Amino acid sequence: MQNNQSADLEKMAQLAQAGVATVHEAQGRRGCLQSYLRPIFAGGRIAGRAVTISAPPGDNWMFHVAIEQILPGDILIFAPTSPCDDGYFGDLLATSAQARGCIGLIIDAGVRDVRDLTEMGFPVWAKAISAQGTVKETIGSVNVPIVCAGQIIRSGDLIVADDDGVCVVKEEELDDVLAACSIRMAAEEVKRARLASGELGLDIYDMRSRLVQKGLKYV
Amino acid sequence: MQNNQSADLEKMAQLAQAGVATVHEAQGRRGCLQSYLRPIFAGGRIAGRAVTISAPPGDNWMFHVAIEQILPGDILIFAPTSPCDDGYFGDLLATSAQARGCIGLIIDAGVRDVRDLTEMGFPVWAKAISAQGTVKETIGSVNVPIVCAGQIIRSGDLIVADDDGVCVVKEEELDDVLAACSIRMAAEEVKRARLASGELGLDIYDMRSRLVQKGLKYV
Amino acid sequence: MQNNQSADLEKMAQLAQAGVATVHEAQGRRGCLQSYLRPIFAGGRIAGRAVTISAPPGDNWMFHVAIEQILPGDILIFAPTSPCDDGYFGDLLATSAQARGCIGLIIDAGVRDVRDLTEMGFPVWAKAISAQGTVKETIGSVNVPIVCAGQIIRSGDLIVADDDGVCVVKEEELDDVLAACSIRMAAEEVKRARLASGELGLDIYDMRSRLVQKGLKYV
Amino acid sequence: MQNNQSADLEKMAQLAQAGVATVHEAQGRRGCLQSYLRPIFAGGRIAGRAVTISAPPGDNWMFHVAIEQILPGDILIFAPTSPCDDGYFGDLLATSAQARGCIGLIIDAGVRDVRDLTEMGFPVWAKAISAQGTVKETIGSVNVPIVCAGQIIRSGDLIVADDDGVCVVKEEELDDVLAACSIRMAAEEVKRARLASGELGLDIYDMRSRLVQKGLKYV
Amino acid sequence: MQNNQSADLEKMAQLAQAGVATVHEAQGRRGCLQSYLRPIFAGGRIAGRAVTISAPPGDNWMFHVAIEQILPGDILIFAPTSPCDDGYFGDLLATSAQARGCIGLIIDAGVRDVRDLTEMGFPVWAKAISAQGTVKETIGSVNVPIVCAGQIIRSGDLIVADDDGVCVVKEEELDDVLAACSIRMAAEEVKRARLASGELGLDIYDMRSRLVQKGLKYV
Amino acid sequence: MQNNQSADLEKMAQLAQAGVATVHEAQGRRGCLQSYLRPIFAGGRIAGRAVTISAPPGDNWMFHVAIEQILPGDILIFAPTSPCDDGYFGDLLATSAQARGCIGLIIDAGVRDVRDLTEMGFPVWAKAISAQGTVKETIGSVNVPIVCAGQIIRSGDLIVADDDGVCVVKEEELDDVLAACSIRMAAEEVKRARLASGELGLDIYDMRSRLVQKGLKYV
Repeated sequence: MQNNQSADLEKMAQLAQAGVATVHEAQGRRGCLQSYLRPIFAGGRIAGRAVTISAPPGDNWMFHVAIEQILPGDILIFAPTSPCDDGYFGDLLATSAQARGCIGLIIDAGVRDVRDLTEMGFPVWAKAISAQGTVKETIGSVNVPIVCAGQIIRSGDLIVADDDGVCVVKEEELDDVLAACSIRMAAEEVKRARLASGELGLDIYDMRSRLVQKGLKYV
Repeated sequence: MQNNQSADLEKMAQLAQAGVATVHEAQGRRGCLQSYLRPIFAGGRIAGRAVTISAPPGDNWMFHVAIEQILPGDILIFAPTSPCDDGYFGDLLATSAQARGCIGLIIDAGVRDVRDLTEMGFPVWAKAISAQGTVKETIGSVNVPIVCAGQIIRSGDLIVADDDGVCVVKEEELDDVLAACSIRMAAEEVKRARLASGELGLDIYDMRSRLVQKGLKYV
Repeated sequence: MQNNQSADLEKMAQLAQAGVATVHEAQGRRGCLQSYLRPIFAGGRIAGRAVTISAPPGDNWMFHVAIEQILPGDILIFAPTSPCDDGYFGDLLATSAQARGCIGLIIDAGVRDVRDLTEMGFPVWAKAISAQGTVKETIGSVNVPIVCAGQIIRSGDLIVADDDGVCVVKEEELDDVLAACSIRMAAEEVKRARLASGELGLDIYDMRSRLVQKGLKYV
Repeated sequence: MQNNQSADLEKMAQLAQAGVATVHEAQGRRGCLQSYLRPIFAGGRIAGRAVTISAPPGDNWMFHVAIEQILPGDILIFAPTSPCDDGYFGDLLATSAQARGCIGLIIDAGVRDVRDLTEMGFPVWAKAISAQGTVKETIGSVNVPIVCAGQIIRSGDLIVADDDGVCVVKEEELDDVLAACSIRMAAEEVKRARLASGELGLDIYDMRSRLVQKGLKYV
Repeated sequence: MQNNQSADLEKMAQLAQAGVATVHEAQGRRGCLQSYLRPIFAGGRIAGRAVTISAPPGDNWMFHVAIEQILPGDILIFAPTSPCDDGYFGDLLATSAQARGCIGLIIDAGVRDVRDLTEMGFPVWAKAISAQGTVKETIGSVNVPIVCAGQIIRSGDLIVADDDGVCVVKEEELDDVLAACSIRMAAEEVKRARLASGELGLDIYDMRSRLVQKGLKYV
Repeated sequence: MQNNQSADLEKMAQLAQAGVATVHEAQGRRGCLQSYLRPIFAGGRIAGRAVTISAPPGDNWMFHVAIEQILPGDILIFAPTSPCDDGYFGDLLATSAQARGCIGLIIDAGVRDVRDLTEMGFPVWAKAISAQGTVKETIGSVNVPIVCAGQIIRSGDLIVADDDGVCVVKEEELDDVLAACSIRMAAEEVKRARLASGELGLDIYDMRSRLVQKGLKYV
């Protein structure tokens, strides 16, 4: 099990290193959450397993229930049952989540205490930054499938997030995706060097004849 | 009077220190302006009295009238009479406002000269950043009640703004709000330490029985 | 020709130095692209000639065709034929464009690889940041007139972009605009000094009588 | 009192007849709520006194409290304390409100049962149509000042609504506004006849010299 | 089988009759698609099984593949793989779908030929009305799980749509939901009569003591 | 000339009859204005030459100047110089425009007096319906090229508008577009009959082998 854990950490590090754009391409241009989710600070770069939360508008009670379910390296991922931009999550919840090993939050709603979260280095990708507080009146669900920013997320799905946004990978596809990422990154390294030297993509990718065939004319 | 002034400055410093999220909670989850108002640079943190401006779309004439009314420590707060994202305010107006003691601007419209304002350290919370210029053709009103980003603001109301957004406090509630902020911040300090040590909110706040009573089931 | 080139570079440097707000005012409050185009990092400041691209939603093939047309100092400016936020452009295309002398991109759609672009110092003004990939299936057009974020842009038009957004200047108006910018900047320097010393705009611009005439009352 | 009531009804009828655009102009281009409030069916045309409601996101409990406060001819006007598009109000609440004499609803949130409301002839101006249900868990306030779609509304303010949107008139300005409406409508009648006959506004309003003076050129 | 079919038709008729708001409540306030999906004409009211389509932005090829899979009474439900408002579907596709027994379309994108679709009585709930055409270049998927306007939809899920929007019901929950709808509609009938007679919800639902307990004060 | 006029009227009738979607396709999927422009009532269907107007936010003075330039059958098309949703145009301007032969308005801003315009049968495609009034303080331009809802429109360009939105056709391409429309409509008539009889698009358009070649698999 010890070995499995470190193998898993290694895979998560590879996912984070590949980054959202590469992972999304490597799995067939799938998995991006909608682009209105933005990081609260630049440079965050994480990958881990999803602990999902579904909760009513304006009610953040379920975060406390979810935090108990966190394993080290997990990522909280939250969607309200109807659209709401309230600030569901702040520095106290982040302190608690971080203490349990949580490495970040993806929230299809609002977040607050942005200055504190930034100082703590706790990355959040959110729909809004809002100080508007919430209540603890109505229960929701933890670790059920949710729709977050347009993607289905299931408990245990792999989440990658960086400055380009957020992407989801299914557990059973992880090894294939990592392999495809490696190949893609190696190929990009070669292309980058050729492009940097001034060679054109038109030539490297042999596009000229196909463009003409599609009807491109130079005038 | 001298004493009153320094007492007032001390209160404003306390408000700014408490921050928008805490102030909003301390007064009963009220007072947040809508979250589309965003700071033009991170880290700004101000509190002061409102000098309000109401003006037509695309006309920034009233800023000059308002600046004459500024007392040291005041904050300009602007709303157009119909929605408009033009860049009403830039570095010249900021220079003038700052020279009169103004410490920041809240604007439910656009702002420009963002690089200069950042270098001057003059914080602005705005709906848009836009270079689109305005004219000086039609008069508006200064120090009348306005609706700015969804909240009623009256001349002399207290404005707090930081990375989480903007909040308004009524003069007559100021002392109660400051007292409530102190209590809240002290209580949060204790909770933060317990949460950081890995204790769960479920236990600290004694939520388990109430959750079960509301129907929460673990499966 | 050598002289012309350096004269041209000098003019572009002057345009960039003047900045978007000043250029926009100097040509009669015209030319701003809509304010939803935002820079991917702060502090970028460029001016150059437009290489325009029109392409279908979700198809970035034409970037390769456009990059061949770039002359040193040019700016790529892209509009999709129907609204699309996909991430059309990333670090490989930027590497290629930069190798040909391109100094930046204006895109009425999405961009990705934001961390890499930031490290490369390649500035982009975009409608969205999105990792969502695109295909190379359908041709579009390069160096045709496009509408980008609400403005007509023709191949060879001059583009200025900074933290305030993006503005377009027509070739035939360039010298007049530069002259007007110089005059404006000199005048602003004087005003800035007077305003910084606490003089009011009401007095500097002699507004008081005109305000009264328009009906302004002090109560 | 009987006389006052019928006088009041007569005034409300005049307001409704004048309509939103005319009332807004007659009081100095003031009072329009933002244009995202749209009627759920065309042709509704009402004027009456406001019963205001402020309530949390996703909680419609306060409607029941407000309905008890309704006097015949009143209009319910609702704003959530933070943005929410849930369907707060449907045919059962409308049945209850209508039974108490309520003539319509203005809601800065969502409404549902649109087909039933249309059949009942109960007009609603709403931000959204949404079947998403709400709870009855948290109290709010009735007949306090609220901000609804960008305007301050106080209990007892006069509300006018038609296909053009919604406008608010203050009690103390009602007689002046009605008088100004009458004058305006009479003047428009004359202008409409002249314009219909093909006369130009340029001539009727004697605009040509002022346009030339402002710099208009015919090319 | 014949019997099963007519039993199924009967259930669909009951779902449509109950309507979106009632169905959504009956299954525990779940299942609403986001409210930006609006009907292209008023009065449409359908229920049926989902044939799902996932396709690239600006490419409507998969509609032809999906139409072959339609059984009488089915509803097409479409989501693009990245946001796009193009007019994917018009009167020719509707003619084809209708000929195969399709009773309506839910589309998280644009639709066109609205006049023809209205004349055909073919109801559509769409994010946009747009004449912008699409191509047939890239394949997508039919009858895979999709996320449409914020909800997970699987092939064979039950879709209800009317003037209030769109709701999804899972096959295995259908009988329970229908039973709950019947109970709810009967109860509402009773309440409606009492409310129409002027009784207050405060009394019918016995809310007064609970409101006082929550802190409501009459002033 | 008489003949030319009636020939022209005939062409406009053909354009309107073809409709926005067909015209847009017939000219190579070009020319659609963005889909946020919506008709104020259903069923309007017009085609005519553009009289363009560019004016500042909140200022409708130029409409009077433009109306003098109207020839029978013309369409007014308006864009503000920065975004604005005010109600620039109402029943008096419509009366005047209609008296001069104007057949409709396209406006990238707000319109008001919607009930009157509907009764007059004067069709408008607008970004917003808003009672918010405007002033007559600042001049703009008439019959200059404008950008309206994302398209370049020049004075004399042909505008087609119906329930699907708005499309622009260039004068010099009119005859080709009309010819292409005729061919397209005839072909659609044939396809419609085949599709209505239950034949599949997959077969009519011979798509099966190309789909397989692209990788489509039936599972």
